[in-house]
Amino acid sequence: MNLSIRNQLPGAVLEITHGEAMSTVRVTLRGGQEITAAVTRAAVEDLGLAPGQSVTALVKSTEVALATGPLSGVSIRNQLPGTVSAITSGAAMATVEVAITGGELTAAITQAAVADLGLAPGSPVVALVKSTEVSLLAG
Amino acid sequence: MNLSIRNQLPGAVLEITHGEAMSTVRVTLRGGQEITAAVTRAAVEDLGLAPGQSVTALVKSTEVALATGPLSGVSIRNQLPGTVSAITSGAAMATVEVAITGGELTAAITQAAVADLGLAPGSPVVALVKSTEVSLLAG
Amino acid sequence: MNLSIRNQLPGAVLEITHGEAMSTVRVTLRGGQEITAAVTRAAVEDLGLAPGQSVTALVKSTEVALATGPLSGVSIRNQLPGTVSAITSGAAMATVEVAITGGELTAAITQAAVADLGLAPGSPVVALVKSTEVSLLAG
Repeated sequence: MNLSIRNQLPGAVLEITHGEAMSTVRVTLRGGQEITAAVTRAAVEDLGLAPGQSVTALVKSTEVALATGPLSGVSIRNQLPGTVSAITSGAAMATVEVAITGGELTAAITQAAVADLGLAPGSPVVALVKSTEVSLLAG
Repeated sequence: MNLSIRNQLPGAVLEITHGEAMSTVRVTLRGGQEITAAVTRAAVEDLGLAPGQSVTALVKSTEVALATGPLSGVSIRNQLPGTVSAITSGAAMATVEVAITGGELTAAITQAAVADLGLAPGSPVVALVKSTEVSLLAG
Repeated sequence: MNLSIRNQLPGAVLEITHGEAMSTVRVTLRGGQEITAAVTRAAVEDLGLAPGQSVTALVKSTEVALATGPLSGVSIRNQLPGTVSAITSGAAMATVEVAITGGELTAAITQAAVADLGLAPGSPVVALVKSTEVSLLAG
């Protein structure tokens, strides 16, 4: 199966918190980082997710933001440090490849942000992903 | 009213599940497919949404992912099969038009994904949309 | 700290509604507008958010939609009226700068939407942001 979602991070379920409509699922990635996904409770039940289960966290490139350092005091649960490996610039948008521990991430951000942050191959960055933007693939 | 949100899918409310903060709303589209929206409970109450009510599901192009076939075991609730009708490629990003039963969808994905998936007019695809990315317009 | 997230709107927490997994936080922006963020409950607790506290609402450009007028009967909680100040067009995507009361917003939308809505510097628009797309930075 081929999927346009560029970011596919393998890991295992650590903990699940159920609400009535939504659930949050904490996942330990293979690289050792932790990531939280906010998904519908119906999805968690249909997938039969449970602690220990293998899952792949899926994140669209357009949902990844970049900071030039760690960000404290922010509601964004997922922060993955890495290094810029490549940048493709368009007129309005750019895609930035980031090497993280145990994998690679793509961020689609505005070209203006690339310029303002002075991003270039080798730049240290922290990739930021809101929990509501993380989907989970079982197995 | 003109709106930049490219994907506007008419349907009717099937079922609502309320949490304290968030609600999930299942909608049957006119094309017969089902779509789930995760929205704030306050929005559902302010709109007075109820089963049977006409709504239009709104999805920004940047929130639509594409797969070359159905995806099982995934938390993404909304999967709409269709056929690529047109592709506009930029340096970093591309927009892909997909004809689905009862309508048309636009997906804004990376140009790298278009290349990797070998997408072209006529390609069968499944459009994937996370419930948290679906908004509802009453009436 | 430099951050690729283009939209950073300072304000203060007005009200918090807790669910088990998710919380909604209403924020009064300095420009006087109100904005709602749907974030994980764990984030609200970790940040110690409370009414009156200073926060900055963060919204990625790809999460901002534009309408040519106010939109009623919609689940999207956040509507910020403004005026287009600049447009950068790519083949597939465009970025649109919008001056709002008390600040500036960037929307990354499809170039097709810019053309269909006839957007140009000076156009009055309403920026729309789904609550699940709003993050909060304390302080």
